[in-house]
Amino acid sequence: MWHDERITKMLGIRKPLLLAPMAGSGGSALAIAVMKAGGLGALPCAMLKPDQIRKEVLTIRTEVAGPINLNFFCHREPDADKRRESLWLERLAPYYKELDVQPPEEISGAGRNPFNEEACALVEELKPEVVSFHFGVPDADLLERVFVTGAKVIATATTVTEARELEARGCDAVIAQGVEAGGHRGIFMESSLAAQPTTMALVPQVADAVALPVIAAGGIGDGRAIAAAFQLGASAVQIGTAFLRSPEALTSKLHRRALAGAKDDQTVLTNIFTGRPARSIINRAIMELGPIAADAPAFPRATAALTPLRKAAEERDSGDFSPLWAGQAVALAREAPAEEIFKSLMEGAEEMVRPSFFKRIRSAGSARRRS
Amino acid sequence: MWHDERITKMLGIRKPLLLAPMAGSGGSALAIAVMKAGGLGALPCAMLKPDQIRKEVLTIRTEVAGPINLNFFCHREPDADKRRESLWLERLAPYYKELDVQPPEEISGAGRNPFNEEACALVEELKPEVVSFHFGVPDADLLERVFVTGAKVIATATTVTEARELEARGCDAVIAQGVEAGGHRGIFMESSLAAQPTTMALVPQVADAVALPVIAAGGIGDGRAIAAAFQLGASAVQIGTAFLRSPEALTSKLHRRALAGAKDDQTVLTNIFTGRPARSIINRAIMELGPIAADAPAFPRATAALTPLRKAAEERDSGDFSPLWAGQAVALAREAPAEEIFKSLMEGAEEMVRPSFFKRIRSAGSARRRS
Repeated sequence: MWHDERITKMLGIRKPLLLAPMAGSGGSALAIAVMKAGGLGALPCAMLKPDQIRKEVLTIRTEVAGPINLNFFCHREPDADKRRESLWLERLAPYYKELDVQPPEEISGAGRNPFNEEACALVEELKPEVVSFHFGVPDADLLERVFVTGAKVIATATTVTEARELEARGCDAVIAQGVEAGGHRGIFMESSLAAQPTTMALVPQVADAVALPVIAAGGIGDGRAIAAAFQLGASAVQIGTAFLRSPEALTSKLHRRALAGAKDDQTVLTNIFTGRPARSIINRAIMELGPIAADAPAFPRATAALTPLRKAAEERDSGDFSPLWAGQAVALAREAPAEEIFKSLMEGAEEMVRPSFFKRIRSAGSARRRS
Repeated sequence: MWHDERITKMLGIRKPLLLAPMAGSGGSALAIAVMKAGGLGALPCAMLKPDQIRKEVLTIRTEVAGPINLNFFCHREPDADKRRESLWLERLAPYYKELDVQPPEEISGAGRNPFNEEACALVEELKPEVVSFHFGVPDADLLERVFVTGAKVIATATTVTEARELEARGCDAVIAQGVEAGGHRGIFMESSLAAQPTTMALVPQVADAVALPVIAAGGIGDGRAIAAAFQLGASAVQIGTAFLRSPEALTSKLHRRALAGAKDDQTVLTNIFTGRPARSIINRAIMELGPIAADAPAFPRATAALTPLRKAAEERDSGDFSPLWAGQAVALAREAPAEEIFKSLMEGAEEMVRPSFFKRIRSAGSARRRS
């Protein structure tokens, strides 16, 4: 055994790899593939209605045994801010005109739901083995009800302070999300976005700060980075981008094309798509409106402003206004069935820590020098 | 042997750890301590005059045998931009007034020298075993003269594209500098600052892209991160921040105080101190003027504008206007003799890859679960 088993034993999985919940890109098919390969499957629930969640969970339970992770957002729904929002719509006016779409008269708040009474009742009904939270954790009464179901609770920290807070709130494990991670930052406490730590810096400091097992996330694109994450003090890794090009993912054709062409230095944190900082491949909307727009509507209300532009552009086969979520290791992601990706990730990691690896590395070094 | 030996053999060092050249904070004493411990000592030359460099090298050669790395900057001296610079001085006017100092009438270009004819002649005279460059490499004629001295040439890449360029220019090794690194980014090709990759993402992608051995830099604060860097594909690590609190470093008292208190989420990239992005602990100047000011004078001319404020504040025991260079692993740095820091870094890394580590990790995991 080359890694500690705190997470695998706690969550009841064979391999220390958690599928990152990716709202919009991950559904039952991707979860099933990862579960079959021995990892923790995840169903991102923030953009699904209760009946869709029920149906997806049923599909997963029918296809494969093992623990499921239901993932929820814990943001607070912001009030409408008419002035700020109408200014933002004004800023977008030239684009609505260019793409010949009707601008929304005002911004609606729909799209992404925070964990609430309804979601909590669903957890009590469906009894997932694991519940994970992004943007903090729910209020004490709801969180307590989740614990009572017997689910293990894990949540994302982007700083040491957030990791300590999650431990104080009773979480069973903490996901240390380095700034290189794709999609939304899990930030839930006051901090400077420009100061968000990377996986390399964050994981050891979180491992020192909390007694909980740590799940490393961000920039982990192959077996080398998995092995590195364990050296940093992680007990498991959470990976998303590496799976986005699998047929099991719900990734759009445009998104796939962007993923296939993206390089190490072509993703940034942007808030223009949803109102919260998230890592996307750079596109026209990000270059012209962001990457960080101080005046974008609060999460998730910014979504409604961009949606008509996104749809119109996508109909013209353009990803200019689409969120193209990806982490910084995107160039290492490849097109293959999810189970195959999972296996090659884990085999790559296992390879790195075998004694034979160190022998081979030495002879490779000598060979290189001779050549 | 738990790591590949491409760098140790190439550079003639016993341990795969390079002292990061830190202009202003590292001199002969720190280089000597690192060399005694088996690593590569570095003398940052960008802020030293030729006679100072001669003297420092003589001190090192007298005290310890082994290879020395002379480090140079490769920026191009910008022309004065009177309009931009006088606007910047206007922006700083309230601070000059508050601290009761004479504003500079205009900005001078002194302070940091690029590698030039004079520096090249010095390399030919002093014959360092290693020459390292930041902000790219010199023009072909100067670079060729460095190669002719027999020095190994290493240089910093912040992206895969830059690493490929360094290989094409004939470098012997490439330093892959993740965005979490303290001090100046080595950026020398057009790229988005917001998209700079982290060590975790950059090192494997650089290792895949070039045949040269890779030296990992950025966020490496202890043995765990060193071991992780080797898993990512590095043949050595370059470390700076971990040594800044040693008595051998020239770090100011104010800087030491800031280092002792800084947390994982308290450093940012800023260009206000010199004109180029560099990672510093957040202070008043960064919060009020930056972190990135589009209107700061070009590197290194911004330095002259802040210097009077820095001096006046420091006289009042305040670091409000001082560059407080540090990487994101600053909280792991401790106060100890540099040789002791070096040994504990390397022992920590060696510990991580012993078979006994994997045994212990397993029993620690079981113990945790029982408790």
